[in-house]
Order: sequence, then structure tokens, then C-alpha cells
Amino acid sequence: MALAPASIRGSFSVDRYPCASFSEARPSTARLSSSLFQGIRLVFAKETMNSRSFTRADLHSRLCARCAVLESVSPTSQGDMTLVNVDLGDRSYPIYIGSALLDTPELLQRHIKGKKVLVVTNTTVAPLYLDKVIEGIKGKGGGVIVESVILPDGEKYKDMATLMKIFDKAIETRMDRKCTFVALGGGVIGDMCGFAAASFLRGVNFIQIPTTVMAQVDSSVGGKTGVNHPLGKNLIGAFYQPQCVLVDTDTLNTLPDRELASGIAEIIKYGLIRDAPFFEWQEKNMEALLARDAGAFAYAIKRSCENKAEVVSLDELEGGVRATLNLGHTFGHAIETRLGYGEWLHGEAVAAGMAMAADMCVRMGWIDKSLQSRILSLLERAKLPTAPPRHLTTEMFRSTMSLDKKVADGKLKMILLKGSLGNCLFTSDFDPKALDATLAAFCDK
Amino acid sequence: MALAPASIRGSFSVDRYPCASFSEARPSTARLSSSLFQGIRLVFAKETMNSRSFTRADLHSRLCARCAVLESVSPTSQGDMTLVNVDLGDRSYPIYIGSALLDTPELLQRHIKGKKVLVVTNTTVAPLYLDKVIEGIKGKGGGVIVESVILPDGEKYKDMATLMKIFDKAIETRMDRKCTFVALGGGVIGDMCGFAAASFLRGVNFIQIPTTVMAQVDSSVGGKTGVNHPLGKNLIGAFYQPQCVLVDTDTLNTLPDRELASGIAEIIKYGLIRDAPFFEWQEKNMEALLARDAGAFAYAIKRSCENKAEVVSLDELEGGVRATLNLGHTFGHAIETRLGYGEWLHGEAVAAGMAMAADMCVRMGWIDKSLQSRILSLLERAKLPTAPPRHLTTEMFRSTMSLDKKVADGKLKMILLKGSLGNCLFTSDFDPKALDATLAAFCDK
Repeated sequence: MALAPASIRGSFSVDRYPCASFSEARPSTARLSSSLFQGIRLVFAKETMNSRSFTRADLHSRLCARCAVLESVSPTSQGDMTLVNVDLGDRSYPIYIGSALLDTPELLQRHIKGKKVLVVTNTTVAPLYLDKVIEGIKGKGGGVIVESVILPDGEKYKDMATLMKIFDKAIETRMDRKCTFVALGGGVIGDMCGFAAASFLRGVNFIQIPTTVMAQVDSSVGGKTGVNHPLGKNLIGAFYQPQCVLVDTDTLNTLPDRELASGIAEIIKYGLIRDAPFFEWQEKNMEALLARDAGAFAYAIKRSCENKAEVVSLDELEGGVRATLNLGHTFGHAIETRLGYGEWLHGEAVAAGMAMAADMCVRMGWIDKSLQSRILSLLERAKLPTAPPRHLTTEMFRSTMSLDKKVADGKLKMILLKGSLGNCLFTSDFDPKALDATLAAFCDK
Repeated sequence: MALAPASIRGSFSVDRYPCASFSEARPSTARLSSSLFQGIRLVFAKETMNSRSFTRADLHSRLCARCAVLESVSPTSQGDMTLVNVDLGDRSYPIYIGSALLDTPELLQRHIKGKKVLVVTNTTVAPLYLDKVIEGIKGKGGGVIVESVILPDGEKYKDMATLMKIFDKAIETRMDRKCTFVALGGGVIGDMCGFAAASFLRGVNFIQIPTTVMAQVDSSVGGKTGVNHPLGKNLIGAFYQPQCVLVDTDTLNTLPDRELASGIAEIIKYGLIRDAPFFEWQEKNMEALLARDAGAFAYAIKRSCENKAEVVSLDELEGGVRATLNLGHTFGHAIETRLGYGEWLHGEAVAAGMAMAADMCVRMGWIDKSLQSRILSLLERAKLPTAPPRHLTTEMFRSTMSLDKKVADGKLKMILLKGSLGNCLFTSDFDPKALDATLAAFCDK
């Protein structure tokens, strides 16, 4: 019996937070015997790029192949684990999501290449998890040597000078071509360690252990790495994919409230740009997220990673649809740049940016006022800002936005909402007067 | 009629410097009607990765497809031009070799993408060719804007601080994702501009106009880009392929003698590692090369690019055979690092390194003394050094060589000659005593 590809794109998990409308949106979601997977929840981000059909036998053998790596990991020590596969041909990689993953280092060990490992982390995360990660890797045996470099914490250190500290350490400790760089920390650590891995000896292995919601739902998928330039964010970098990403949801217990909310801004974004049922799920479960409910977070991270993985698989190098992941980021980057990196968290700036984009879309008649209200309400419940600091001027926005990476041949392209919830456009074909009016509405001058 | 793939890998050109033994080595070399190509000499570096056979009709249509781009370029203004195609799937690119190519900017214009161009050059090359290149690109019309950044000249400026000047200029002049970076200069400019193009906005278009023999026969093929670290050469970089490479042999007329000889060292290397007939051709034509005979150089550059393109096509990311291109480089890099970058030219250090490698191979009985003599004699005729400066110590060599990119899991792998002329190995399986003896022979202590 042949299954349509759509059914394979769905989720095979029995989620603790099942979303009623999720199965309506993806009517052919299949549910498989949970005993087959010994408690492991499997999600296939995008099983079929080439829209051929599969028989059930095909499907079963593919699932078993994907599971093989997991079956030897003790299910008891690990509890529930979700796997999202980011499908990029020979650069595909798995994202493992679950609690206590750092206490079961077999998965991490499996993806370590070579005999030398450099763990890159920061002064905040190092006291919490560095020893555990180093011991976990050393447990692999075979004389693997683990070195580490501890960087100062914060977006303002995401620069070339700090990047050089990674290279200095790698060279001092004689990391070779077969070594592995491990990023242990938030998005800044992931981006810098990834760019260092991409550039050291023209490319070494790379593993991510993201410890913030932001890094787990955003930076962990897509291979964007890089550093900031004094004149603009992320202007220097590379597309570079990791060997694997390990999301231990327990690390969220040590995350400050502002960091938590900042990550939730990106979760809200996925609903807005392409996943109305996920947005509706968030409307029902925002308080559970703020209470750091492990199950709620596992679902939100999984669904975010799936959404991002689908988009990235379609457009690895950001030619088109991938740009939609930057909803709110054009305004947001301007806020971050003008305030100085680190003054506002990335997600806070994105939240304000999404509110500004929604305002612009209402002005053009692209979305209803009622949708704008739902967006603002959800952002507010997440304790996120819905406007930039008043002292930023329209001129500041304009001049910084003109340096945006999405400017091509002198024209600014923006991600804007249009139509019902879950629909957006990446376009330069918008009314510039609406942009003027939005900037005027949000800035004192 | 089916032709074996080997015949397609051969050269279709009628060379001004035909190499008698070349056609013996590649017996099925086909010669096509020169009128078909209006004086354009076509070379196919590696037409068939997948060893299927072609009929003559297939072959003819492929040649015509490749020629289409050239046919609209006036043959009279261009004289002889050779095309080497570097076959890397969707990253394939052409190398155009000929005289007066900068005076016929149609080729350059054809590969310019977007409306913004940043030409990266240095203080030596800028007064000679920058205006010509800028005017050539502007001749494309359509409002293309050309900016330039002039870096200090020399290997000692191939560092992160100088790289930042390229980013600064690119950001100041608002280069966007569709822009093109053009490297106008030698290997240092090519490597830095290429790494900047790879990293700016995570990758923009890139064109190379190499103006030294070294850059024309080495850096122009293979996509290696990067900068030096105070502790080692080329430790930070990326693999990044250009849109095209434009080799105007007239630029050699302004090249200092030492630079010329330095490039010839790499030409000699290609003969040693894989092309005995080319080495023999050099033995017959070294004086023509030193006299900057345009035809001799066009042939030597073409044959070098073909050799490198074949190797790179087989192994883009340097997993194996590509490493053989580094014959003499392990010793050579140690010399450059210890003397300080720029004291000796790269090719001078490689020449001494090849002499040291030959010494080591004789000690192990891997090559005959007579081959060693031919190598030393050709290097000397090219006015290249055949030994490192005596004041470098064995300890200096050892400590720098242990940082070499070719160290994997703590073991140094070297490129060594074995057997008859044109054969080499990339191996860690050599007698360490031979290395000791070679270092002792070439160093005072």
C-alpha cells in the first residue's frame, strides 16, 4: 500500500501536548506503535524532498534505520527523547531533544570524530555544565583529549577579537583536521564556535549543545554561523552544518527569565510565518512554557526545529523561502545595532520587530486588526516588548536597515504577514509609505 | 563511434610548445580543426568523472556548448586564448588564459553578478592594472558600481587585521549579497579576497585575476582561501570557488625576477608529483620561461592548471590525493613560518622543501640519486634555492611541522617521491630516521 508523501512529513510522535488542530492541518499524521520505539518519540522533519510515494514496508525500514542509532542507548536512563532530522543531503544531521541527555553521553560520544576535542563555552555556562560535558566525552575512551576555551558571555563579545581566542586555543592545543569543536552555550557561542569550526584548517567537525531556548529553537538548525561587525550584526560568517545537535531540556532550569522569554519570541515567530496550529497551541500553553514545563518545552522546541528544518531543507543557502525565518529581524537587528549588542536580547528585539511588521501589514491592509491583536497579546503574555525604545529615531532605523543582508541591488526586502494566520511573504514590493508610517508611529522623531 | 573517456581527458589544443612525450603519455589526444575555434585553444581538464563513453557527436556538441561563450568574443582583439575548465559539479568554473585579456573586458563583464563590485588589490598592483580593471567592469553598463580597496603588499599582511579592511570597505560601500568581489593581485590577495568573499554575508560572488605566476598556477585552482595565524600559515580559511579566473599573461611582464622564479617552483612541482612529460618539457624550456616567453608561459600555466584541476576535481576537500599538491610544503611552511612571512617567497621555500623531500627519499631508497640530481639541477636553473637558511635548527623544523594541517591524530603525513619521475605518495608510513638525517644534513644544529 502506498502512502502519500504528506503522511510521511507528519509527526509520528504521541505528544504530551497533542495539538488538536495539528492533525487537522496534517490530516494524514500517522501514529505508530510506541512499543516499537521504546519510548523514543520520532519526528521526521522532511522525509521526502522528491515527492515519490512510499510503501509501508519502505517506511518501516526507513524508520528502523533511523532508530538503529537510538536503540543501543538505554531508554531508561534517557526518558523521552525526540529526534528531528535536518535533511540536507550529505550534510544532514540529527537534533536530539530530551531531558538528562548530558547525563547519557553515549549520543555525544557517537558523534565525536578524531582524538581531539575543543569545547567552546562561556563564563556563565562553564560552571554549570563544562565538567559534565568534558567527562562525558572522555568516557568515550581511546585516549580522546578534551580541551576547552571559556569566552566572556554576551552578544557584545560576538566579534572577531573573541573569535581569535578560539583559534589561539585551537592552535596552542594542536587541534588537527580530524578534531571536533563542541559549542556549549547559547546562540552567541554556537555562532562563534561554528564559524571557528568552519574556518579552522578550512573546516573541522562541529557539535552543538545549545543551552538557551533561543539557541535550541533557532541557531541549532540551519548552519548559520558568524560574528558581528561594529556596523552590523552577523555580517561575517559561513553556512556550516554540525554533526549533530544535542538539546538537553534540563539546561533550561538554569536560564534567566529574560533569556527564556527571548527564546519564546522565536517560537512565536514560527507560528506566525507558517504554522497556525502551532500559534494556537502557544495561545493555549503560554503559561506552561513560562513555568518551564519540560513537556511543553520539548514539544515547542521540536515543533520549532521541525518548522525551521523544513524551511532550511528547501533553501539551505537562503535564496528565497528561508528568508521568511527573519520575520521581525530587519527591525530587530536595527534595534540591537543601535542600542549596542547585548543591551536588548535578540528575541526581545525580534518581538518588537514582529510588532512593527504587524503594524506595517495592518496599514497596508495585508492582515486584519484582529490578528495584530492576537500577536500583541501573545507577545505580552510572554513578557516580551512590543515596541522599540522610544529614543531610537526613524533615521537610525533607516540607516541601519539599509545595511541589512536582505538588501539586494539597493532594494530592501522584508518579511511581511499577508492573509490569514500562518502566511507571510518575502518581498520588496510593499508600500514605502507604510514603512514611513510605522517608523513614525514607533519613534519619537 | 565511441571514444574511451581517456581520449576526452586529453588536450584538444595545438600547442605552440608541443610536448613530444605528452602525446605518448596520453596516446589518444585528439586534435581538432583549429578553424572551428577561431584560434581559441580549448583544454578540457577532466571532462568525464563518470567513466561513460562518448560518441564523436556527443563530444562535438559538448565542445560547441563550451565554445558558445567564447564565440561572441572577438578573436582578433584577443589572440590565442586557452580555457581550462575546473570541474566541480555545480561549483565548476572556467580559467581563461591568454594575453591582453584585461584589454577585452567582455569575459570579465560576463561573470560579474549584481550591481556592486569590490576590487581587492594591493599597493604594487593597483598603479599597474586597477584603473584598467575598473574601467573594464564599468563598461558592462547598467549602472554597475565599482569600489576598490588597496591593501599593503606582502605575505606578512595576510592576517586577520588586513582581512578586516576588506570587510570594513565592503560594509562602508554597502556591498550586498549579490555583489562580486574581484581579487586583482598575487596569491596573498587571492587568498584574502577569497576568504572575505566566502565570509562576507556568508558568501558572495568571487572572481580572480591573478597577476603572478604563483597565483596563476596555484591559487587560481582549488578554492583554498584564508589568512595566516602568527603561529602558522593558512590556519584560518575556507574552501570557496570563484565564478571564473582570468589569467592575462601580459601581467607577467611587470613581475620581479624573484617572483617569477617562485612561481616556477610550483610548475616544477606538478611535473614531479604526477606529470613526467611536463617535467621533461621544463628541462627543455626553462630558459624560455625565464625569458618570459609568452607562449612558453601560456603552455606552462595551462598544463599546471590542468594538473591541479584534475587533482582538485578528484578531491575537492583534500581528503587524499589533493594533499600531493603540497610536495615540499611541509618543510617549506616551516621555513616561511620561522623566517617570518615574506622573508622568503612561498615558491622559494617550496623549492628548498622539495630538495629536502628528495634528499629524504634518496635516504630511504625510494628514488634514485639520478632523479635527485635532475630535480636539483632544474631548481638551480630556475634560480631557486635548494636548501633552507642554515641558521634554522632541526628543533625549529620539528616544532613548526607538528602544527602542520596534515598532522592527523598526532601523526605527521608527508608527500614523498617514490619510484620513477612523476610518482609520489601521501603517507605517514616513512622512516623517521630518514627525516632526522635530512634535518641534520640541512641544519647546522
